[in-house]
Amino acid sequence: MQPVYPVILCGGSGTRLWPLSRKSFPKQFVKLAGDLSLFQACVQRLRTSAHLSLADPIVVTTDRFRFIVKEQLETIDITPDAILIEPEARNTAPSVLAAAVHLAQIDHEALMLVAPSDHVLQDADALHQAISIGVQDACAGRMVTFGVTPDRAETGYGYLRPAKPASPGQAVPLAAFIEKPSEKAAQLMLAQGNHFWNSGIFLFRAADVLAAFEDFEPDMFSAVRDAVHSAKRDLGFLHLDPGLWKDVQEISFDHAVMERASAVSVVAMSTSWKDLGCWPSVRELSPCDPNGVATSGPVTAIDCRNSLLRSETPGLELVGLGVENLIAVAMPDAVLIADLSRGQDVRQVVSALRSKNVDQADRLPVDYRPWGNFETLTAGDRFQVKRIVVKPGGALSLQSHHHRAEHWIIVHGTARVTVDDRVQLLSENQSVYVPLGAKHRLENPGRVDTVLIEVQTGCYLGEDDIVRYEDAYHRSAPKALAAE
Amino acid sequence: MQPVYPVILCGGSGTRLWPLSRKSFPKQFVKLAGDLSLFQACVQRLRTSAHLSLADPIVVTTDRFRFIVKEQLETIDITPDAILIEPEARNTAPSVLAAAVHLAQIDHEALMLVAPSDHVLQDADALHQAISIGVQDACAGRMVTFGVTPDRAETGYGYLRPAKPASPGQAVPLAAFIEKPSEKAAQLMLAQGNHFWNSGIFLFRAADVLAAFEDFEPDMFSAVRDAVHSAKRDLGFLHLDPGLWKDVQEISFDHAVMERASAVSVVAMSTSWKDLGCWPSVRELSPCDPNGVATSGPVTAIDCRNSLLRSETPGLELVGLGVENLIAVAMPDAVLIADLSRGQDVRQVVSALRSKNVDQADRLPVDYRPWGNFETLTAGDRFQVKRIVVKPGGALSLQSHHHRAEHWIIVHGTARVTVDDRVQLLSENQSVYVPLGAKHRLENPGRVDTVLIEVQTGCYLGEDDIVRYEDAYHRSAPKALAAE
Repeated sequence: MQPVYPVILCGGSGTRLWPLSRKSFPKQFVKLAGDLSLFQACVQRLRTSAHLSLADPIVVTTDRFRFIVKEQLETIDITPDAILIEPEARNTAPSVLAAAVHLAQIDHEALMLVAPSDHVLQDADALHQAISIGVQDACAGRMVTFGVTPDRAETGYGYLRPAKPASPGQAVPLAAFIEKPSEKAAQLMLAQGNHFWNSGIFLFRAADVLAAFEDFEPDMFSAVRDAVHSAKRDLGFLHLDPGLWKDVQEISFDHAVMERASAVSVVAMSTSWKDLGCWPSVRELSPCDPNGVATSGPVTAIDCRNSLLRSETPGLELVGLGVENLIAVAMPDAVLIADLSRGQDVRQVVSALRSKNVDQADRLPVDYRPWGNFETLTAGDRFQVKRIVVKPGGALSLQSHHHRAEHWIIVHGTARVTVDDRVQLLSENQSVYVPLGAKHRLENPGRVDTVLIEVQTGCYLGEDDIVRYEDAYHRSAPKALAAE
Repeated sequence: MQPVYPVILCGGSGTRLWPLSRKSFPKQFVKLAGDLSLFQACVQRLRTSAHLSLADPIVVTTDRFRFIVKEQLETIDITPDAILIEPEARNTAPSVLAAAVHLAQIDHEALMLVAPSDHVLQDADALHQAISIGVQDACAGRMVTFGVTPDRAETGYGYLRPAKPASPGQAVPLAAFIEKPSEKAAQLMLAQGNHFWNSGIFLFRAADVLAAFEDFEPDMFSAVRDAVHSAKRDLGFLHLDPGLWKDVQEISFDHAVMERASAVSVVAMSTSWKDLGCWPSVRELSPCDPNGVATSGPVTAIDCRNSLLRSETPGLELVGLGVENLIAVAMPDAVLIADLSRGQDVRQVVSALRSKNVDQADRLPVDYRPWGNFETLTAGDRFQVKRIVVKPGGALSLQSHHHRAEHWIIVHGTARVTVDDRVQLLSENQSVYVPLGAKHRLENPGRVDTVLIEVQTGCYLGEDDIVRYEDAYHRSAPKALAAE
């Protein structure tokens, strides 16, 4: 069997699942349902198959998410062949193109299966069957789409119209892509039958998609090709060249290539599929009580109906009383309450918060870093308290601050702490003082997470008061200013 | 002019304003609207008058709230003649009786004005005028009630029916107390006119109410009389005798006395008045936008109607999108979302949470103590982080712990810290370690609040791991176990 290379796209960041999904930590990395994030589930789904020979995945993400991707892959014991790092997100067309260029260096005729990482697909085996059916057309130089049989007149998805009745287990030519339809048009397609939702999953040979890009988007083709060819390997990442990337057009793969291609096929998948794009679709996916109420976390629902009530934090009790058709999502720094009919308009919320300069629009209270994470517990005039978690083997850079002193109290695990010339090993219940200006470093030499409480005092406590001397993660100095 | 003694009742704790009002810090002490709590506003309203000679107030509360009362009075520069401390709340009848017994010791004929502290009354002058009209009847041995002209068929209040048409500026005999009516009965009274809401404010001579209690509730009369006569003065409080108090019946003053009394008058007040008993009434009192939306705190409302959206915490962004007839109250540890029609049923929420043993049912994240307050910022396995605020002059008891060590980092102000034999003065950015078992004390010798971060580590971190050696606030040893 010819191997199929999964190409997992995970560089996007939508706004409709705010406040759980934010620009700093978008939905594909969130555990929306179950123990795995959507991204992890997508990778797992394309790991092994009875119907296919699946190669190691190629993951495409952006600079901002690279350590999240790496950590989430490590958690499921995957070291992908390549993690392509886009300097900045430019929608899906450049991502697919970059993967194709990279793959063509290995095998020009390689089959690539493009999969977005933000959907939910229940039956992996059915997906694999559909892919195996598509392989023949792909090997014949066609571009294959995968359709989902609609069970309602959904206006939030694009549709696929086959040129002739498509029976399951068969690839048929595609007549047209149909953009998100009106209610009326969606009703009509549902009544007519032989229309499918566009799953956003595609199969083709690297050579064929490269040829299509060269035809339809020659500027993008050459810029992305060169950015991949000049990419730099570092810590398992393949950093595309930022100078060449910066003028790459922002456009979706559907618009740039698929809708213009001539030899397109469609295979109908016999599995349920959901684009987890908004809160109402999360509710549909979640188990509901007899009144249609889906809850998650510490929630008490009294006399509620047709609602989604989620508390995302232990210790934050969310109570619904007599509410109907409501979405409520509670986090320690933000609470959303929206009518169920307004799921698409949550993006308005994010815009409104951005225009008010509200931090919660884009940032989560927890900041993820290559060495672990930190969270501000409280901030006052001239002081700030953080909880810092350092993973085994993790190390903060050797650094100093101009405007603040720090107290560190270890509450779990072990820390190797450097303060100027002194290196000491601290364990639970020990503390150390880092005076203003002192060169210091914190490492976890142990096998369990190190958890410490940091109390900062000083007249300026911004993250950008940092002078970095050495960094295990090769974070560049200017970027370091905004991100330890 | 004969002085009128305000008797302020503030020992109750309702549940319908959860999560803002909790058993540990009920609504009368919350700043629900404006800079003063309802309790403070009530005291201020009865401080000076153009129409009356007002004596120092007599405040009646329970043991649990005594330091909150004292602090809130200090903030508005009031040192009341007496703060009567009931060992436990027993509804309003025993409170009124205790105040009457206390007052009769000073002046048997003294006029007492009983006022609950959980209502909102906009025109203090109109109240004073009404009281001055009532004084003549009270001096003639009658018990005077104060009525509010209804503007709607409210079913949540009791009503007063005068024996003859009551014109403003006149005290007329009362025909009947009417319990919270049905919708139909309320409509009828509104249509008939000459019915008033019962404001719960009463005026009479101490001697007269004592005689009434002796008649109607002889057991309560003797028990409460003796509990007041055996009361102990301490730090400005008058602690009623707990042994004599424990069998006192729990009953409202309306039921125990007013509804049975024969010589009752009513004076109509010409001021708006609200029993701030539930969230819908808070909404009515709050300024609304043209869509009927009242907001408080960091709130963003998009396309909302007829709703109350409150975030009680800086940094907790509450967003409403397309919601209607909704109450949403967000706090760091609890969020309530209720249909506006279900305001009365919030008490069900509290019962439901209590039956699930959810801490948030009754406790706030901040604990108020005589010396200041503390709040748990984060808690993990074997550690806990608190922010502690000590008022100028405040001192935690000299204490030790069996199971935990503590790190203190001063982030604001100055602290005098005793650890075993060593006493040291610490200022901002200094820290101290309190080993397990060490006798320690923390005092604020300065003029500004001391703020410190406490990091506790140990196998057991409950508040009841405390051995207390000396306490400036005379908190008894057994109680101390549950409350530093």
